[in-house]
Amino acid sequence: MIKRTLTVSLLSLSLGAMFASAGVMAANEPIQPIKAVTPENADMAELGKMLFFDPRLSKSGFISCNSCHNLSMGGTDNITTSIGHKWQQGPINAPTVLNSSMNLAQFWDGRAKDLKEQAAGPIANPKEMASTHEIAEKVVASMPQYRERFKKVFGSDEVTIDRITTAIAQFEETLVTPGSKFDKWLEGDKNALNQDELEGYNLFKGSGCVQCHNGPAVGGSSYQKMGVFKPYETKNPAAGRMDVTGNEADRNVFKVPTLRNIELTYPYFHDGGAATLEQAVETMGRIQLNREFNKDEVSKIVAFLKTLTGDQPDFKLPILPPSNNDTPRSQPYE
Amino acid sequence: MIKRTLTVSLLSLSLGAMFASAGVMAANEPIQPIKAVTPENADMAELGKMLFFDPRLSKSGFISCNSCHNLSMGGTDNITTSIGHKWQQGPINAPTVLNSSMNLAQFWDGRAKDLKEQAAGPIANPKEMASTHEIAEKVVASMPQYRERFKKVFGSDEVTIDRITTAIAQFEETLVTPGSKFDKWLEGDKNALNQDELEGYNLFKGSGCVQCHNGPAVGGSSYQKMGVFKPYETKNPAAGRMDVTGNEADRNVFKVPTLRNIELTYPYFHDGGAATLEQAVETMGRIQLNREFNKDEVSKIVAFLKTLTGDQPDFKLPILPPSNNDTPRSQPYE
Repeated sequence: MIKRTLTVSLLSLSLGAMFASAGVMAANEPIQPIKAVTPENADMAELGKMLFFDPRLSKSGFISCNSCHNLSMGGTDNITTSIGHKWQQGPINAPTVLNSSMNLAQFWDGRAKDLKEQAAGPIANPKEMASTHEIAEKVVASMPQYRERFKKVFGSDEVTIDRITTAIAQFEETLVTPGSKFDKWLEGDKNALNQDELEGYNLFKGSGCVQCHNGPAVGGSSYQKMGVFKPYETKNPAAGRMDVTGNEADRNVFKVPTLRNIELTYPYFHDGGAATLEQAVETMGRIQLNREFNKDEVSKIVAFLKTLTGDQPDFKLPILPPSNNDTPRSQPYE
Repeated sequence: MIKRTLTVSLLSLSLGAMFASAGVMAANEPIQPIKAVTPENADMAELGKMLFFDPRLSKSGFISCNSCHNLSMGGTDNITTSIGHKWQQGPINAPTVLNSSMNLAQFWDGRAKDLKEQAAGPIANPKEMASTHEIAEKVVASMPQYRERFKKVFGSDEVTIDRITTAIAQFEETLVTPGSKFDKWLEGDKNALNQDELEGYNLFKGSGCVQCHNGPAVGGSSYQKMGVFKPYETKNPAAGRMDVTGNEADRNVFKVPTLRNIELTYPYFHDGGAATLEQAVETMGRIQLNREFNKDEVSKIVAFLKTLTGDQPDFKLPILPPSNNDTPRSQPYE
């Protein structure tokens, strides 16, 4: 009995030392753990959630924010480039909305400064939701159940696109995914990663991936050229950051995507050109780092990347108020 | 004080008598209240919920059961006729999945005998989800997280379309919506309906609506000709029950839809031809009952119909397992 107690005590001491050392280690890591976000205004986030799921913000009544940023599927649609109004093929891969509040700006080219500005884009984009801000306002304002919520949240029941997107952004800010295996490891649980995953992380750090994929979101904090050492071959005509700055030097420069939940957000790159994580890692090594990862290295880096999957959204399916005789009707086939 | 007590006592007695009488009355009503359903197999219902929300059962990876039977919106899409693969316009209005287990058969023409048989239809219909049962099986079977659930629920991890649709049907059987104002009234709460709603119900009964819209689902229990006294004018070519029986007498004969949650399931009729409840009531009166309801009558019947909205689905958004390198890829643009 005494012996057992002693063993346990020694084990505790030993674990304590290990955890302390891991804590120090985590502080020196280029990636930081993330924490769940409690919205500043819970009622506003709830309203934003309803709007996020409401397909009546689209002309067809069929496409909601959640159609392309599907929260059952990692906050994306898992399609090369998204399907828009009348099945138009979108120009670019839908980035995940998970942890998107950590991005330095929104869209692949960073043309929206924040989530609120981003949310206004697809609603009125004729290739995406194909509505207008005016109609979206009228649709939402027609429903007293929505107006009551606007009154509670904003102090009056006036429905404006500014308020609609403010609420959607407030909801999106809650879409943070802590609790990944890698976060647990960063926080000191040395057993959270297995040997392959740890070796993968060391390769990820040692080969330079971490130069761009760093910080709490493991990306999202800088713009980088796609194709540093070798050009990225794609039929996708997106010019990237150049479309925003007008600067030829910004051609093929894109926002570095977050790697959190990357296992869920296939296919990869702005054109959705890499179907698998293995392809993505191989390509990144070759064109960004001038390095040919071998099969074993790719496999280990992929094992590490899969440890970045965090707790997924955990809330009830929102129930939307019904349209009424004053609600502008959807026009799916016009 | 004594007087007040006496008054209250008398009131209680009087209410008690009224409630008792309402209880008796409810027993004689042609519509019966409904109760929440606990699934026989909760794990199977949970699996079915995931499959119901999984757009990878479609060729595009974009359309799930929930796309056209949106549980945020009364279990339908609120579109005249549904949008299918590549934005093909569907032939008929999507009926609500809510309380659909109470239907005598599924689809407007009753061609599927139950929910399980129904669920298999859209997956492989080239105008709807446009996949095949074989591919749907391969997609689901590729994900170990799904296979584990199949093993738990069915005793082995084999994924068949039969099991997929069995699970979806088990989930759909839980989609019952008790708790409506009208159910409360049926159960004896005389104050649950206001004067207009009650008058609307009496009109509904007295004019003959209830001949077809009766039972627990307020419909769903018979096939009836659309256009008894006057033809129903529509450009929709659906022949109804005749397509199943081959019998010319069954032309324009359709399953009577449930009226539960009718406020949420606009637009109305098999062609989605009535945008509002007022239009629907006016048309039904004219062509089915040979009766021109006046504005006041329409308004009261509509007020009654809105008391049929029950408790909506109350569950967490399902989180779906990610595809992996073995999962057949979606083909949204092929």
